[in-house]
Amino acid sequence: MSVLDRIREPRDLRALTGAELDALAAEIRTFLIRHVSRTGGHLGPNLGVVELTLALHRVFDSPRDPIIFDTGHQSYVHKMLTGRREGFAQLRQKGGLSGYPSRAESGHDWVENSHASTSLSWAEGLARAFQLRGEKTRTVVAVIGDGALTGGMAWEALNNIAIQPDLRLTIVVNDNGRSYTPTVGGLASHLQGLRTDKRYEQALRAIKEGVRATPLVGGPVYGLMHGFKAGVKDVLAPQGLFSDLGLKYIGPVDGHHLGALEAALEAARQFEGPVIVHVITEKGKGYLPAEQHDEDRFHAVNKIDELTGAPLTTAAKRTWTKAFSEQMVHLGEGRPDVVAITAAMLHPVGLGPFAEAFPDRCFDVGIAEQHAVTFAAGLARGGFHPVVALYATFLNRAFDQVLMDVALHKLGVTFVLDRAGLTGPDGASHNGMWDHSIMGLVPGLHLAAPRDETRLIEALECAVAISDAPTVIRFSKEAVPPPLPALRRVGQVDVLADAPGARLLVVGYGQFASLAADIGRRLGDQGVPCTVVDPVWSLPVSADLVDLCRDYEHVVTVEDSLVVGGLGARLALALQDASVPTTIKNVGIPASFLDHASRDELIDSLGLSAQAIARQLVERAAAADDASTAARSGVRNHLD
Amino acid sequence: MSVLDRIREPRDLRALTGAELDALAAEIRTFLIRHVSRTGGHLGPNLGVVELTLALHRVFDSPRDPIIFDTGHQSYVHKMLTGRREGFAQLRQKGGLSGYPSRAESGHDWVENSHASTSLSWAEGLARAFQLRGEKTRTVVAVIGDGALTGGMAWEALNNIAIQPDLRLTIVVNDNGRSYTPTVGGLASHLQGLRTDKRYEQALRAIKEGVRATPLVGGPVYGLMHGFKAGVKDVLAPQGLFSDLGLKYIGPVDGHHLGALEAALEAARQFEGPVIVHVITEKGKGYLPAEQHDEDRFHAVNKIDELTGAPLTTAAKRTWTKAFSEQMVHLGEGRPDVVAITAAMLHPVGLGPFAEAFPDRCFDVGIAEQHAVTFAAGLARGGFHPVVALYATFLNRAFDQVLMDVALHKLGVTFVLDRAGLTGPDGASHNGMWDHSIMGLVPGLHLAAPRDETRLIEALECAVAISDAPTVIRFSKEAVPPPLPALRRVGQVDVLADAPGARLLVVGYGQFASLAADIGRRLGDQGVPCTVVDPVWSLPVSADLVDLCRDYEHVVTVEDSLVVGGLGARLALALQDASVPTTIKNVGIPASFLDHASRDELIDSLGLSAQAIARQLVERAAAADDASTAARSGVRNHLD
Repeated sequence: MSVLDRIREPRDLRALTGAELDALAAEIRTFLIRHVSRTGGHLGPNLGVVELTLALHRVFDSPRDPIIFDTGHQSYVHKMLTGRREGFAQLRQKGGLSGYPSRAESGHDWVENSHASTSLSWAEGLARAFQLRGEKTRTVVAVIGDGALTGGMAWEALNNIAIQPDLRLTIVVNDNGRSYTPTVGGLASHLQGLRTDKRYEQALRAIKEGVRATPLVGGPVYGLMHGFKAGVKDVLAPQGLFSDLGLKYIGPVDGHHLGALEAALEAARQFEGPVIVHVITEKGKGYLPAEQHDEDRFHAVNKIDELTGAPLTTAAKRTWTKAFSEQMVHLGEGRPDVVAITAAMLHPVGLGPFAEAFPDRCFDVGIAEQHAVTFAAGLARGGFHPVVALYATFLNRAFDQVLMDVALHKLGVTFVLDRAGLTGPDGASHNGMWDHSIMGLVPGLHLAAPRDETRLIEALECAVAISDAPTVIRFSKEAVPPPLPALRRVGQVDVLADAPGARLLVVGYGQFASLAADIGRRLGDQGVPCTVVDPVWSLPVSADLVDLCRDYEHVVTVEDSLVVGGLGARLALALQDASVPTTIKNVGIPASFLDHASRDELIDSLGLSAQAIARQLVERAAAADDASTAARSGVRNHLD
Repeated sequence: MSVLDRIREPRDLRALTGAELDALAAEIRTFLIRHVSRTGGHLGPNLGVVELTLALHRVFDSPRDPIIFDTGHQSYVHKMLTGRREGFAQLRQKGGLSGYPSRAESGHDWVENSHASTSLSWAEGLARAFQLRGEKTRTVVAVIGDGALTGGMAWEALNNIAIQPDLRLTIVVNDNGRSYTPTVGGLASHLQGLRTDKRYEQALRAIKEGVRATPLVGGPVYGLMHGFKAGVKDVLAPQGLFSDLGLKYIGPVDGHHLGALEAALEAARQFEGPVIVHVITEKGKGYLPAEQHDEDRFHAVNKIDELTGAPLTTAAKRTWTKAFSEQMVHLGEGRPDVVAITAAMLHPVGLGPFAEAFPDRCFDVGIAEQHAVTFAAGLARGGFHPVVALYATFLNRAFDQVLMDVALHKLGVTFVLDRAGLTGPDGASHNGMWDHSIMGLVPGLHLAAPRDETRLIEALECAVAISDAPTVIRFSKEAVPPPLPALRRVGQVDVLADAPGARLLVVGYGQFASLAADIGRRLGDQGVPCTVVDPVWSLPVSADLVDLCRDYEHVVTVEDSLVVGGLGARLALALQDASVPTTIKNVGIPASFLDHASRDELIDSLGLSAQAIARQLVERAAAADDASTAARSGVRNHLD
């Protein structure tokens, strides 16, 4: 029986010897590499926190002491130690283990959100709640990466936590020098400075020596701590930025030395106030292919060969990201005023080649979407045209800045939203469901969702030519669909399919334009002729589209976006305003949080497949036909 | 002729003698007190920056060197010095001077947004734009209060600025120790520490003495600077938090000593890299009633007596804020688990009495809406029910946190949004137009807009009883309208007016419920009988309301919120889903940025008065009656 097999819950860790713990760490790494290479997932971050997670669970009493992982994708080891090893065979799959903490899976998971930089606010809230109820022996632990610390709300929380001397809150800064790529900014430089500070090398050595003299048996290192506590003030020496804010600081601690970690965490626990524990870890630690991978150290992988780390995907499909990436370089060559901005996602959003071609014109601002947007506004005010490339779900963070800084100031900024629409395996918070609806509230904003690469290129060229309003271009994480040329255009609207005598108009755009075409074929096959169109630009609602609706009795919209605030809902309002009596049905994503599953599974479960939508439409059309014969010649009574 | 009369543009300041400058500062204060006491406006902040603004305009070359005022309400002196004195008679009035910077008013105003903490991002964008174009002699100046520095996006910007050694950017920290009330957090303590640091008292004295020896004639203090520049390293000594991030620091500087200010700003300008200039000012300086006003030092005033500072408003009306404020204390007494959170607006949102009654249960987190919301989620996860009281427009900043941290986690948090709907004099960014629409995208969220105090109390009691979802209660900055009791209730819907044979249903809620009732009376008078209802809870759309619509041919919704994403648009979708053939017309605020004016003027100009809406409905009803006679017996053909 391996050591790992004996760990059913965190308290089983307490009785292990030092040798057993070393063996356990190795077994955990082997387990992670074996499983994540088969399912895909966040491999690098979890290999980096093996010892840290062991130490956390030996020193703190989870779930009584909540352990909150910022961003959450580094919670695999935590899951393994809290009774969820079996789930890794179905990691990130429908019905299987979530790739993030999950309250449904375990009482050890207090928070399950996966947007960055929130853990300190959560932790302060929980710690205050315990404090208000007089639960004085509970400590809240937040584990936050150096990358997540570049996010503004982490600073907002630190500013508040710093003035609560009695809050039992341990903040572990998991410093691997990286977000996805190396962390940027003054903070990162400061952490780097702390890492190489001589005084702390000495402190570290002292801790290690103290640990070596103390047998790691029978629970946390109380023996060491007893002697150590007297000297706690030395360890908690004022240290730079955190101390300036008023926070105690311990560190830096070798994040792969279990004894040192436990000593530091125990000191923090016993301090009974807020403490920063600065832990140095290596992303991908213990897996050579990850350690040697410069770009992102296997931050997130698809299926890979367990031994070599080589991708196992079949012939790589051309993604939207790739198409955008190439076009950006092309745009950059012709337009010296085009600059690019990423929020700690240079490669995932496809800006790597642009950065290489135009290093002075590409800015990585860290996990800081708010700043990214207003910084873009400033660049635009200064005469440049910024292209801000983000994951769609993260634009939620900067709604106010798009509205007040870009749109109110009538500035030309292009937002390119990758991972728009249903994404799937990353769970509820990673679906790009909200961008269309919130952007639709921004006066003057243009939004395009191209259906193929030709339309993407056209949309981008159009966007960077707009100098007085924000423009959004959204696309999915899927492969670019094959070209889908228009039969003809009606004003700005592309007609994808025509049928004589059609009384039904099907509107689809973006990733769902081909779905709309598929629905059209199925309806035609079943005797319901229809016209299928793609407006490409869904905001503002095209007057041509409104006019086109006049020629039909019914219009159905299908979109890879929320129904509420989607193109369909906006078209319904426009029809109302223009007194167009055509009835409308909007199909899209419901306003609910979606469990993780594959994109296709989500589409099926939401009834968004072409088959399901076509079937529903045929049934409704038949029912309507029966009912409407008498009414067809009438005029709708419309109060506008 | 006063000195002030001789200042047409900033360059006119350069030739003034020290005595003339002293006289000018006094004249500016007199002017501000005289005018703002008559119009209302942000008096305290502007009295605090008289010397600072003079120094900025003497040292920098605006508009070539952009001066960006964070939040912007402290730009009155800047306006006076850039040719806009005449406008102060109509300050914040329709067609008159804006209370914030305004690009339409002057080329000296680069940015006009009034949401806090954005100036550093703007400044970095502009400075990078100048840098990219090789415009090496332009410096960008950001003036940011210590309060605005508690906002996360300011930190995101600092983190980026810190690593750009060649960016010509001067950051003036206008430290008056206050947001609205005293600034909170570790940063404020740190600034306080800098203020009282002995070394800086010495540096300050040295600067002052240097200045005294240099005649303040003929432009900035070049004579001083010439000798001073050699010693610039001493002035730019590493100092705490800012230096830890990698930023040069000058300060603290007496913000009411013109010579010291100019010396410090000139040193910053000549440094040719990013520099923090820490300036200590007093809010309300030079006006005794403001200096002695503990609560907010006349942060923003209505009309006041120029001499005494006493409010000149007639019999104070009972505001929504006041009603909420009292009810919170009542709730707090009965519910020990109810806690309250404000983002630097304790008194304006009415939480002062709650804080006094329950000091342990009221948290001011600074200008940090993102943290406020996730901190609330943490408190809720820990068993408390937080009431987060914000201005409606500032909730835009925390959409992602309401969505991902509160709603996804199914937590009971109540958001109370003051200043919802049209507000007016503060201009485009202060209207509470977006809250309903963005909150409508949050799964499971409840939203109520009470029409009178009874409904407010009911809604609050209902909200704090909800433990598994966020709830929003929104109300306006107006007086609470008189009680408007329901004639009867249909399920959860209050019927406010009935008419036999009505084919038209008018739906209004919140501040517009009484407007709806007024519309109903006018329609009845003109032969169009209608029923008027108030659902009180507009999200989720009430099934009772949908059912009620079945009994009418037309429904008209009126709301003090965006049409897009408002109750009306949501009801239209619900009618579509339920195959209810009733036609619908949505009336509300259009998606555009509204120039400053009074609320009543905005209502008129948007056609939202009862008279205008009623007239429009009567005309349409007549037209529709003519056209619909044939169709009335028919059944609508509806694809769902």
